[in-house]
Amino acid sequence: MAIEGLSINLATTRGSWGFAEAVDGCLTRGITAISPWRDQIAAIGLEEAARIVRLNGLRLTGLCRGGMFPAADAAGRQAAIDDNRRAIDEAAELGADCLVFVVGGLPAGSRDIAVARQMVEDGFQAILPHARASKVPLAIEPLHPMYAADRACVNTLKQALDLAGRLGPDVGVAIDVYHVWWDPDLAEGIARAGRENRIFAHHICDWLVPTRDLLLDRGMMGDGVIDLPGIRRMIEAAGFHGPQEVEIFSAGNWWKKPGAVVLDTVIERFRTVC
Amino acid sequence: MAIEGLSINLATTRGSWGFAEAVDGCLTRGITAISPWRDQIAAIGLEEAARIVRLNGLRLTGLCRGGMFPAADAAGRQAAIDDNRRAIDEAAELGADCLVFVVGGLPAGSRDIAVARQMVEDGFQAILPHARASKVPLAIEPLHPMYAADRACVNTLKQALDLAGRLGPDVGVAIDVYHVWWDPDLAEGIARAGRENRIFAHHICDWLVPTRDLLLDRGMMGDGVIDLPGIRRMIEAAGFHGPQEVEIFSAGNWWKKPGAVVLDTVIERFRTVC
Repeated sequence: MAIEGLSINLATTRGSWGFAEAVDGCLTRGITAISPWRDQIAAIGLEEAARIVRLNGLRLTGLCRGGMFPAADAAGRQAAIDDNRRAIDEAAELGADCLVFVVGGLPAGSRDIAVARQMVEDGFQAILPHARASKVPLAIEPLHPMYAADRACVNTLKQALDLAGRLGPDVGVAIDVYHVWWDPDLAEGIARAGRENRIFAHHICDWLVPTRDLLLDRGMMGDGVIDLPGIRRMIEAAGFHGPQEVEIFSAGNWWKKPGAVVLDTVIERFRTVC
Repeated sequence: MAIEGLSINLATTRGSWGFAEAVDGCLTRGITAISPWRDQIAAIGLEEAARIVRLNGLRLTGLCRGGMFPAADAAGRQAAIDDNRRAIDEAAELGADCLVFVVGGLPAGSRDIAVARQMVEDGFQAILPHARASKVPLAIEPLHPMYAADRACVNTLKQALDLAGRLGPDVGVAIDVYHVWWDPDLAEGIARAGRENRIFAHHICDWLVPTRDLLLDRGMMGDGVIDLPGIRRMIEAAGFHGPQEVEIFSAGNWWKKPGAVVLDTVIERFRTVC
């Protein structure tokens, strides 16, 4: 029995499963959409991963992740660009819907976020020709402002859409509820993203109260305060009907449980609270 | 020797000092501007605190704090309004420049942040007549989006200014660099706040990388990544020339040190990196 509209970001089962085990766990439960991370692909090998994807007719709602453009010197920025070109190749080989970008924060020693943001834009400009030639859509993921310093200096949907607009029609956004749920301009941003055909992915999890760690304490859907159905309806009304991709970083809780328990819980919550 | 342009929010020395000790520590070092918390005033008594303030000619750059308007039922919201009226009385008695507002997050059990935001606005409307009669300016402090669930559902300067605009000319904003430094629209927001004469306070500290706790891991100026002089120049250009108020919540570090060490460090950093 297939489960429609649900994708598993393989970070969610990272605590116990690599790529192959996670694929098996998903297929056993009728889930045919996933979003893997590059290190998980590297561990099994790109060729083998692509074979598994094709053999099972898996949909990849994204490949995680490109980005991390800012660096303190030109060599560092070039290394990031080169690595992003390889990420594009991998996304193309795997047939992913998009390559998801966590754009990077302040370069070491810098306090100038405007400069970091320009480095991000310059980095995208440098890789865009290769992305176009490879027919890989690029999805900018605006990250919660608490990651502005060390992970992503693109922090609101509006900012991501403005950047995508300067880059071109084949650049879009990955909307992760965890990062944007608080935004007073969220409804406006989602509607705009739909009008501009830039919604490439829809990630879900939940915001826990209290949140005990800035990075690794995301909640299972239903355990936090995000209005998941409300945001889903906005995204659907904006014209995106792709799977909801469950991405949960949870070092203290879900990563400690067996992948089977995590997936069974995801499915139950997907059916009841999303 | 007076130190001009520096105010100490007494949360900064909370680890070792109450109101009277903190005032002594400031005066000894030539600091004549402070911003106390209501629990610190209550501990010594409002009358005694006001006597100390007047006796020493202290400037209060703010009283912390009003707010926390949203509640699950009408009785809870009324209790918050009543408490905010008392906070206004205290700010008036102490002659504070403004009463600073941490507006509150989602009421218990709610996932509807739009409703919480309306409760905040309704709460302000309910206390405004008393604030006007008492001649106490109200300063809305937009809090970092990581506090949207449990502390403040007003999370950007633009949002705070829009709210202040609906409330009236005697409502402004407290701009704390910790909460707003990441905002891609920060320069625009500060300039607008200046044009509208709504900058009532300027709080400083620093954003540490990594940040180990969402609430109590703020950094001493210079230990993090915030461009403090850059933001100060924007605020000065917008017409605010009041003291920079140092507000550091630091359970793991500064609250463990003697108040004298904290203040001496604040003064050194104020002179070198702000």
